[in-house]
Amino acid sequence: MPVHYTEPTSLLPIAGVRLGVAEAAIKKPGKRDLLVMALAEGTRVGGVFTQNAFAAAPVQLCRERLAGQPAIRALLVNSGNANAATGAAGLAAARDTSAAVAAALGIASDSVLPFSTGVIGQQLPTVSVVMIARMTAAAPAAVADLRADGWLAAMRAIMTTDTVGKGASRTVETSQGLVTVTGIAKGVGMIHPNMATMLAYIGTDARLTPAATQALIADVAGRTFNCVTVDGDTSTNDSCVLFATAKVGAADVDADHADYAVIAAAIEGVCRELAHAIVRDGEGATKFITIAVGGARDAVEARAVALSIAHSPLVKTAMFASDANWGRLAMAIGKAGVEGLDVAGVTIALDAVAVIEGGQPHPDYHEDKGTAVVSKDEFTIRVGLGRGSASTTVWTCDFSYDYVKINAEYRT
Amino acid sequence: MPVHYTEPTSLLPIAGVRLGVAEAAIKKPGKRDLLVMALAEGTRVGGVFTQNAFAAAPVQLCRERLAGQPAIRALLVNSGNANAATGAAGLAAARDTSAAVAAALGIASDSVLPFSTGVIGQQLPTVSVVMIARMTAAAPAAVADLRADGWLAAMRAIMTTDTVGKGASRTVETSQGLVTVTGIAKGVGMIHPNMATMLAYIGTDARLTPAATQALIADVAGRTFNCVTVDGDTSTNDSCVLFATAKVGAADVDADHADYAVIAAAIEGVCRELAHAIVRDGEGATKFITIAVGGARDAVEARAVALSIAHSPLVKTAMFASDANWGRLAMAIGKAGVEGLDVAGVTIALDAVAVIEGGQPHPDYHEDKGTAVVSKDEFTIRVGLGRGSASTTVWTCDFSYDYVKINAEYRT
Repeated sequence: MPVHYTEPTSLLPIAGVRLGVAEAAIKKPGKRDLLVMALAEGTRVGGVFTQNAFAAAPVQLCRERLAGQPAIRALLVNSGNANAATGAAGLAAARDTSAAVAAALGIASDSVLPFSTGVIGQQLPTVSVVMIARMTAAAPAAVADLRADGWLAAMRAIMTTDTVGKGASRTVETSQGLVTVTGIAKGVGMIHPNMATMLAYIGTDARLTPAATQALIADVAGRTFNCVTVDGDTSTNDSCVLFATAKVGAADVDADHADYAVIAAAIEGVCRELAHAIVRDGEGATKFITIAVGGARDAVEARAVALSIAHSPLVKTAMFASDANWGRLAMAIGKAGVEGLDVAGVTIALDAVAVIEGGQPHPDYHEDKGTAVVSKDEFTIRVGLGRGSASTTVWTCDFSYDYVKINAEYRT
Repeated sequence: MPVHYTEPTSLLPIAGVRLGVAEAAIKKPGKRDLLVMALAEGTRVGGVFTQNAFAAAPVQLCRERLAGQPAIRALLVNSGNANAATGAAGLAAARDTSAAVAAALGIASDSVLPFSTGVIGQQLPTVSVVMIARMTAAAPAAVADLRADGWLAAMRAIMTTDTVGKGASRTVETSQGLVTVTGIAKGVGMIHPNMATMLAYIGTDARLTPAATQALIADVAGRTFNCVTVDGDTSTNDSCVLFATAKVGAADVDADHADYAVIAAAIEGVCRELAHAIVRDGEGATKFITIAVGGARDAVEARAVALSIAHSPLVKTAMFASDANWGRLAMAIGKAGVEGLDVAGVTIALDAVAVIEGGQPHPDYHEDKGTAVVSKDEFTIRVGLGRGSASTTVWTCDFSYDYVKINAEYRT
């Protein structure tokens, strides 16, 4: 059960976006594991992708096609097989399956962006032959299923070990009319900044320029998806794509336009909601934990401390046990590699409860106060480094038996 | 149950070293939790300590006293309370308790090195008042218990969540006669390079110079204790001390002496055995995994890749499940941050089974071959980066339900 998150029951359609799903039998039979998103002509697309050197074949193709700046007209997603570490045959599979979708839609092959999620490490025959055959066979059915209100079905088609679908919508008033933003995401493990193991697709009908679309998603992903972590592992397939169909208004919106800020805020809001949903549904998560680090000399060291806490198995297992084990927090701060950190300036608080001050327990701190905070299923670990004014916030979950269970039994 | 490791049933005494234990009631009643090691006059002592900024009070005092280069005559260890993040009161506790031992032995206070291991995050009153009172009361009993054959009892007195005591001995012939090395260690979690969460004490009767003693332990620790990892967390208390009582021979042995290499090899052998024992007894460990990375441009990137694999919860849970999930190995290699890594040059093997070549599965690889390797309780993950000749080896364990259980319930 996700921590304070339930699957949305409706998502707003975006003018210029149609979504269709089908069964390609990449996952177990009976699962709709193929998604096609068709985008209106003139849609502007931006994306950010995994930094993993073993970037999956579809990620390589996405980068290539976005760099070539063709008019992107469709996105193809399969779940069940990540098509990663598959070499030339994997690239062929990504090319051939996106070509099948292009044919069914009557568009150019390089105007389709392919995405895959699921098990990494399937044998090549499965990927190259079976995957191409099955996805090619299912592509027409997904295209035939295209509809404006297909967001909920799309959200479910991209799930792997997610226990709930993740989606969010909002609308904002702009000078050119009402702009709508809808996003869907998947991901629960192998979640780590740059990027989380995750796919996220955010559509809007705003008339963002191509340059603004790319800059905006890179900027927003840095503050949302790249600030969540479940296990510190980085997927080979992470992709986050923003598409702006330009259906609202006649004037292009770039970063200098009066409407930019409000549109960007709506997109950031949707991305934050999706990023939090990923943590709330983190594999085995029983608690949603915000880690706020301040008083740093710069953002780099603030982030290093926040991630050191967020990645520490000892902190995460203590939180699972509702154990206000601040010694482990001190350990995680101390090992973060902050040059010349003076522990006398370090403060630690759990929500509003001061725990550590001057490098040692606060005189008013009693363990029952700390226990009361960490026994909740949602709380904030606040750290002050006492050496500057930079700060950062990351979000993570605890580490439970179920994390091990889910990941030890994933392929069995 | 540790992976292929049983507690030693005898350890060789070291001329010039006597060990005594007592109950100080820091741990639960009935446990001998206080250890005093008395060293003969003229003993040369070297040590390496945690890099954690929240270094515990006793670590701070050890550094201060070793830097002052007094004649170190005794080591005092308590288990059950780490005396970390305890500020000035914690330092006072370390000073006062080592003074109590010094008084009982009739030696100078600053010739005693204090060490603590156990829970970090006890309230100050416990540390400063109760701890001082109980340890001071128990110190004379430990001193009265001093004996040359006290190594096994000492080994057990420093255990915390260890399931077995860890010790090793060996002898080597030198030009000046037979040299003996005996070491004991503790540590099973919060185990990470620089240093593992661990205490290790290695004694020898060799006549190493003070400078050689320090240089040797720093060098050896880098290749042994700093190459094991259980969970990537770094303790506030890690300490590794080598003491050379100079009882064998009349000529000092420095790095240029003919006997140095053979003595160093014996010490390294004992340290490697202890370091491996820590991983074999790693919290919840069911497998002992060697990670050998070669073909790197330099040792730094070899180590980054080895530790990225060794720290990945997804790799470690797959190994627990005997799942030859090489996709997770590729993921961990790819996320290690090796600049410009060309995956086409990467090879992965499990023992002698070639899994990945040219960035994709080896044509002869079948999953049953990989499964056969990772189903064993001891195997090697071999990675070639194909871009140089540097290599490194680290040792780790898998990640099981019991890791979570042990760490979630540590204080309850």
